[in-house]
Amino acid sequence: MEPISKNKIKWIRSLHQKKFRDQENCFILEGKKSVLEAIEIVPNLVKTVVTEPSEQLENLPNTIELLLASRLDFEKMSTLKTPQPCLAVIEKLPYQLLAHRGIILVLDHIQDPGNLGTIIRLADWFGIDQIVCSENTVDLYNPKVVQATMGSLFRVKVHYKNLVKYLDKVKIPIYGALLEGKNIYQENLPNDAILVLGNEGNGISEEIKPFIQNPITIPRFGQAESLNVSMATAVLLSEFKRGTVN
Amino acid sequence: MEPISKNKIKWIRSLHQKKFRDQENCFILEGKKSVLEAIEIVPNLVKTVVTEPSEQLENLPNTIELLLASRLDFEKMSTLKTPQPCLAVIEKLPYQLLAHRGIILVLDHIQDPGNLGTIIRLADWFGIDQIVCSENTVDLYNPKVVQATMGSLFRVKVHYKNLVKYLDKVKIPIYGALLEGKNIYQENLPNDAILVLGNEGNGISEEIKPFIQNPITIPRFGQAESLNVSMATAVLLSEFKRGTVN
Repeated sequence: MEPISKNKIKWIRSLHQKKFRDQENCFILEGKKSVLEAIEIVPNLVKTVVTEPSEQLENLPNTIELLLASRLDFEKMSTLKTPQPCLAVIEKLPYQLLAHRGIILVLDHIQDPGNLGTIIRLADWFGIDQIVCSENTVDLYNPKVVQATMGSLFRVKVHYKNLVKYLDKVKIPIYGALLEGKNIYQENLPNDAILVLGNEGNGISEEIKPFIQNPITIPRFGQAESLNVSMATAVLLSEFKRGTVN
Repeated sequence: MEPISKNKIKWIRSLHQKKFRDQENCFILEGKKSVLEAIEIVPNLVKTVVTEPSEQLENLPNTIELLLASRLDFEKMSTLKTPQPCLAVIEKLPYQLLAHRGIILVLDHIQDPGNLGTIIRLADWFGIDQIVCSENTVDLYNPKVVQATMGSLFRVKVHYKNLVKYLDKVKIPIYGALLEGKNIYQENLPNDAILVLGNEGNGISEEIKPFIQNPITIPRFGQAESLNVSMATAVLLSEFKRGTVN
């Protein structure tokens, strides 16, 4: 293991920006637990691991570059307020679009990184394999998204697509969360379906609305003006899956 | 309307800290929409409203002190990265503990302000009147909590109590989210119940566990290690309430 160079620090720092993540086809993952998980699940994609000298990471595959850095170096490279003494640079995940089976989440212009990360984690909990995002949804590899997924980005396949073209070809029922939709608690929900969730402020966009064959909503019992999109996703996924266990 | 004084800026800034919020019995609310909502719901508790000169707030009750501040002043007073040109100082809410009716949320050592704020907003959506927090739960008036409630803190009553003493006197069934609990989807849930949620990392504490008569859990369909506590709250409240509509 050798000390990290100034150039490498600068390079890792550049990956905070989407432009450089796209150019280099890499992203940053922070935290020892997450890094070890990545090495377990996608060993071939982990390019570089950086730790403080006191951190012990043993028996790593020898395809991985190992570098040492000081606390000060981590402050330069990290996107966290409290940097952790371990990070990795990982190649973007080669997701493949699967068949239209099970529940597929479609995200129409989700902007907040925390929301996207939380939705990926929820999908992983509820056994949802695939998420299809509009091209204007926040970047999956944004460090705040990566952090909020808590490792679930290695298990849930996330695609970016032109949603009009994508939904036009879909053969399974399309549900969408719309305020004027039907009470989700009274629907007989299918095992195979698309579930569309819209933007935090504006909901599902006008060009996507015509594709929603089954508008659904979560009844409001109190007076809150709205539910955050990731809260709504939690309730809706729970409804789609609750009937499948016994 | 007069310009804000340096001392007043300093005083408002001091309210970022719990110690001074407790001493002054006041907290900060930011954003024009929230401030107008507060003036509508609790006019007598709104002590001071500060705006930039360009902001027009008309017909305010004359019990409210109105002050003008510059963008730079707002940067000093605000807890937000992007300060909004409107804030208010409000007296702490005189919540009264109500009867044991409906669903009462009990929070055992919730630490993250975003989680507490989100849970209060969820409670408001699902028509939950009351939340009882352990004394070591994050402060309701922490600016991040206030922000995340999106106004719901004016509608949901939040109490801080010694939970052992509180739960000891409760006469309605006590449910708690525990990993080893029963599948929530298969329970017949009552209309009146206590629902206990635990700390982000450690769950429900050892001293509270003996009170949980009905441990429940949300089945996991995929591989995510855990659900965030506010996500779990969304699903559990949905389950408690879904049977009550037709």
